[in-house]
Amino acid sequence: SRSIRLAVIPGDGIGQEVVAQGLKVLTAVLPQDVKLETKEYDLGAKRWHATGDTLPDAELAALKQHDAILLGAIGDPSVPSGVLERNLLLKLRFAFDHYVNLRPSKLFPNTATPLAGRPEIDFIVVREGTEGPYTGNGGSLRTGTPAEVATEVSVNTAYGVERVVRDAYERANARPRKKLTLVHKNNVLVYAGHLWKNIFDRVGQEYPEVTTDYLHVDAATIFFVTQPERFDVIVTDNLFGDILTDLAAAVTGGIGLAASGNINPTGEFPSMFEPVHGSAPDIAGTGKADPTATVLSVSLLLRHLGFEAQAVRIEEAVAADLTERGDAVRSTDEIGDALAARVAD
Amino acid sequence: SRSIRLAVIPGDGIGQEVVAQGLKVLTAVLPQDVKLETKEYDLGAKRWHATGDTLPDAELAALKQHDAILLGAIGDPSVPSGVLERNLLLKLRFAFDHYVNLRPSKLFPNTATPLAGRPEIDFIVVREGTEGPYTGNGGSLRTGTPAEVATEVSVNTAYGVERVVRDAYERANARPRKKLTLVHKNNVLVYAGHLWKNIFDRVGQEYPEVTTDYLHVDAATIFFVTQPERFDVIVTDNLFGDILTDLAAAVTGGIGLAASGNINPTGEFPSMFEPVHGSAPDIAGTGKADPTATVLSVSLLLRHLGFEAQAVRIEEAVAADLTERGDAVRSTDEIGDALAARVAD
Ligand SMILES: CC(C)[C@H](C(=O)O)[C@@H](O)C(=O)O
Ligand SMILES: CC(C)[C@H](C(=O)O)[C@@H](O)C(=O)O
Repeated sequence: SRSIRLAVIPGDGIGQEVVAQGLKVLTAVLPQDVKLETKEYDLGAKRWHATGDTLPDAELAALKQHDAILLGAIGDPSVPSGVLERNLLLKLRFAFDHYVNLRPSKLFPNTATPLAGRPEIDFIVVREGTEGPYTGNGGSLRTGTPAEVATEVSVNTAYGVERVVRDAYERANARPRKKLTLVHKNNVLVYAGHLWKNIFDRVGQEYPEVTTDYLHVDAATIFFVTQPERFDVIVTDNLFGDILTDLAAAVTGGIGLAASGNINPTGEFPSMFEPVHGSAPDIAGTGKADPTATVLSVSLLLRHLGFEAQAVRIEEAVAADLTERGDAVRSTDEIGDALAARVAD
Repeated sequence: SRSIRLAVIPGDGIGQEVVAQGLKVLTAVLPQDVKLETKEYDLGAKRWHATGDTLPDAELAALKQHDAILLGAIGDPSVPSGVLERNLLLKLRFAFDHYVNLRPSKLFPNTATPLAGRPEIDFIVVREGTEGPYTGNGGSLRTGTPAEVATEVSVNTAYGVERVVRDAYERANARPRKKLTLVHKNNVLVYAGHLWKNIFDRVGQEYPEVTTDYLHVDAATIFFVTQPERFDVIVTDNLFGDILTDLAAAVTGGIGLAASGNINPTGEFPSMFEPVHGSAPDIAGTGKADPTATVLSVSLLLRHLGFEAQAVRIEEAVAADLTERGDAVRSTDEIGDALAARVAD
């Protein structure tokens, strides 16, 4: 019989609350014969304050033994900016070679988009996850003096770009519209930009059915608000993907619905699934957090592990829940219960 | 009597057409006793195709003698991406130390915003113009092979950051709301991000009346579409400013209205004013280009040269023109004529 050994990192702020709902729905949707083993890891701001640890080697090694990781949210204003991001969240993405950062954007029925006219939105962003300006390469000289120089180095390799571009072509090829857009800024970032563009064009020859185009990142933000329906699959660099997917979340009804998967397609390392939103300390503990993004991340997790039918069931439950919800304000728990009930049916 | 020695670079595509309207309005708004001397510089795609020149030293030296530069648009698909951007447009910005890239965003009456509910939008972005990922620092090793590595280096100096941050505080302090937002990504780009944040906080102590806040660039894009009214003045890095100002243009009625000034506040070099939009080769010569962004850039030019009353007259003319225009589709020329007539009154 099948089993899922799942690592759970609730993290900070609303992380605990939303992860609890994600697990509730996961339990409800799984077939009886699938054994779910979860192990919780205490990582994040509290741990750092108590011990100074962010992600000790022993825990990294333990996490590696799991089939997948479900993460809530990392970060708290009491921790200096960058400490937990670099030494915990990004460390996980890099250590487990999560080179496909997958972020679907869909405008579900009955959700509040800030865009007039409710365009049809249904695209996925394949964000590179292990290179670009996220490598931590850079430094600061004469720090804190009037002569300070600080650098950030975006590192891009043919190896790293080709594998994520290829993944994006595969995804585009499997979708009805078969359209892939490369977003970069190759008129200014000419070295990295040309590397991306050349590989994008070359790999494209292997996918004659996929229609391609190229947009500078600044122009892409315009189309996100004026013509989001033009996008099907987008492939882009780590930083541009970070920016674009928050904007995508905003136009598709907010960060409360945006799911993501940090995927290691080779299966050498566990993939990690997390809502795009942060720890939202201002509403932590109030029951106001929307767990839907986490639940949709669980759907991505199931698809990654081969439970396609269950993944679809969750997506359908979310769509139905959003369509049929009334005007009542629901708590984190109530939304989780509603979704769990739907998928269990 | 006063005079303006203006360099004009019409550039490519619709550049010619929109610059002609900008000059028409400039001529109409200037007091009789101000002598306007314009000199046109033939730079851009055509010149590059004919001679291989982008911006020869002699022309750079000649441009330096002017009080200001009016630029239409640079770029054409027939020129490899990056050639004209790096060797002409960015070369001008860097050579003339345009460290304040000023981009106002205002939702004028009767313009089509993609945002539901027409929020009030009236903010300015102070984009750093001479550092960050735009320095051309970087390279590519084993280019074109499977072992290629391409880097882009963002260079940030205390010198460069402090002067633009100070400029932004001055602008915020002079506005009724007195609010300044720093946008960066200091949880990932920790070296550059901390440099920006430290200088932002330190300089802020000299402006006790200015309210400040900080946003990561990804979060900022969310607020641009969900709560744009929260912004007054934004200061940010060269690349983030590039991305945010295209998004700002999109939510305030489109790139046809977005003006910009590449300003050298010390006056050592001529400042350069240009619409945010590109050369739009697809509509060049059709009379469909909206010259309003160029006309508003002329307003910024006049303000920079001390003609405040005339700058305001242009802004008021644009607001009135947008409010009172009917449904008729107007040509580039007709819009220019209408604005020229209004400012001449
Ligand atoms: C928290 C931060 C490091 C992270 C990122 O920049 O990738 C977040 O914004 C995200 O998009 O997952
Ligand atoms: C054309 C390009 C080099 C330029 C930039 O990136 O600055 C443009 O997008 C702009 O915003 O003026």
